[in-house]
Amino acid sequence: MQKLLNDPADAVVEALAGMAAAHPDDLVVDLGQRVVSRRGGAVPGKVGLVSGGGSGHEPLHAGYVGVGMLDAAACGEVFTSPVPEQLVAAHRVADGGAGVLHVVKNYTGDVLNAQMALELLESGDGPQVEVVVTDDDVAVEDSLSTAGRRGVGGTVLLEKIVGAAAEEGRDLAGCTALARDVNARTRSMGVALTSCTVPAAGVPTFELEEGRMELGIGIHGEPGRRRLPLGTAREVAADLVGPVVEDLGLRRGDAVLALVNGMGGTPLLELYLMCHEVRDLLDGAGVGLARSLVGNYITSLEMAGCSVTLLRADDEVVRLWDAPVVTPGLRWGA
Amino acid sequence: MQKLLNDPADAVVEALAGMAAAHPDDLVVDLGQRVVSRRGGAVPGKVGLVSGGGSGHEPLHAGYVGVGMLDAAACGEVFTSPVPEQLVAAHRVADGGAGVLHVVKNYTGDVLNAQMALELLESGDGPQVEVVVTDDDVAVEDSLSTAGRRGVGGTVLLEKIVGAAAEEGRDLAGCTALARDVNARTRSMGVALTSCTVPAAGVPTFELEEGRMELGIGIHGEPGRRRLPLGTAREVAADLVGPVVEDLGLRRGDAVLALVNGMGGTPLLELYLMCHEVRDLLDGAGVGLARSLVGNYITSLEMAGCSVTLLRADDEVVRLWDAPVVTPGLRWGA
Repeated sequence: MQKLLNDPADAVVEALAGMAAAHPDDLVVDLGQRVVSRRGGAVPGKVGLVSGGGSGHEPLHAGYVGVGMLDAAACGEVFTSPVPEQLVAAHRVADGGAGVLHVVKNYTGDVLNAQMALELLESGDGPQVEVVVTDDDVAVEDSLSTAGRRGVGGTVLLEKIVGAAAEEGRDLAGCTALARDVNARTRSMGVALTSCTVPAAGVPTFELEEGRMELGIGIHGEPGRRRLPLGTAREVAADLVGPVVEDLGLRRGDAVLALVNGMGGTPLLELYLMCHEVRDLLDGAGVGLARSLVGNYITSLEMAGCSVTLLRADDEVVRLWDAPVVTPGLRWGA
Repeated sequence: MQKLLNDPADAVVEALAGMAAAHPDDLVVDLGQRVVSRRGGAVPGKVGLVSGGGSGHEPLHAGYVGVGMLDAAACGEVFTSPVPEQLVAAHRVADGGAGVLHVVKNYTGDVLNAQMALELLESGDGPQVEVVVTDDDVAVEDSLSTAGRRGVGGTVLLEKIVGAAAEEGRDLAGCTALARDVNARTRSMGVALTSCTVPAAGVPTFELEEGRMELGIGIHGEPGRRRLPLGTAREVAADLVGPVVEDLGLRRGDAVLALVNGMGGTPLLELYLMCHEVRDLLDGAGVGLARSLVGNYITSLEMAGCSVTLLRADDEVVRLWDAPVVTPGLRWGA
């Protein structure tokens, strides 16, 4: 495999050591627990926002630790949920006395490990923790690794928006309700043009012939809705935007916040080109583009392809989106 | 080819339309001239900082237009210099009355087109324009497309640092001298693990067998120093950092600003892992890491691989680096 690695078994911890080297003023990296948290520790009186999941989706989640977004992130092996002890460590470091909201992408392993972490905390003196599960992927209802829909790109938008609310001092019940509301108003769909290779496996996760695409791909290379010939960017955009607009029930006059996300191996030139097509499709549907974010924000290692996430916008969501954020992966306004 | 495109001939202009859609409050995109400039126009009394070059290196250069960095960028076809008329259009839109500094990466086509643009301006009533050519790549002394060394990752650091000085009000002579100084204190070296495919060509630029790497690769896939078996990340980091440290004459006690840059198709996980190795190598040489930047900042479409750029740091360079910047590709402190 054509990768920059030492022993593949050390890839995650060595990458975290690199994050520590690159962001010494902003992040604390616990290499033993593989938990990344804000330098300076938990903010007293603020709800702690925590997430976690398998590695290989960078900058998600560790790259979203910082002012205005996450307080801590627990990092599993590549495409593998962190274990309960890691999650408990993240909860503890994020706890400023106002409780912790834990955002989990809907995958069976991640959900089970989060439940086990809650049980560990309840038997001790841990903080109060609420869990919100994201399930924004309209591609499939169930999959090999999920009951219900998968959590994908909407997770990035949720962590930003709820992070802003927590920073403003919203309490745990308020942050939890906001997270459920943001998840409910968000839908995504992705497409793969190539597979990716998990370092420990050493071979591509799946095979995809030249000239074909996997529509509705999962962020770990799980099967999507169907394979079909690779169309033009305009056709692919329609394949992604159509199901999202329909499932979200968007109507003429609505506005959205859009994420045009790269899976890791698609050039930014193509992502901007896709943003142009997405905007044209939304224009045609009479849906306004309140804000947009274009780039690699929730990736699948070096997979080629992209996903489109639309979030039904209102003034409050846009205000929280625009609020300052200072993380390695998202940064503005401060 | 596995790409999100309509007609490959339209890729650049459609991507620029996507930039306009994604950054309506910050950028003005002239789709006719393919020039991206700051919304609000030239800043009166400020030196205008302009760059340009072939597309396919995004976010370079159009993604660096904004407060604290470039005033305008001219975008050529993929891996092809913009023509003189585009450069003149960029000079004019960036001119706030204090002259324009034009940063050119050292490739024969880019240098010739810049000279022709100057001749066009001198025959008219255009602004005063100074040109600085970057040539930070230590890999090769001459190449098929270059007399002397190629301009690569150091261009990103130069545009940020000189952009900050221009924003502070430094005059054209001062900005020009600073740009030459920054270029002189910067060196880079890159490695490719795969080729990339130019949309209009439709086939990979070169072939690289599994398990091998091209050391000293150029950002358009030009040949490097040699092909050799792909080593561990630690070995590859040494292959990149060693020649840069030697050529820059770094000694124990020096400090650098480091860019660990992805070529477009390498996951952020691997780039952070490489940052860890680069830091260890610098530690071993007694060289301090004053600042670092890790991610995809000057890319070669979807090429897998990375480059390392080191800039000899002093207090003034670090101060200008830390100054606010608000662009699509780099953003902090404002």
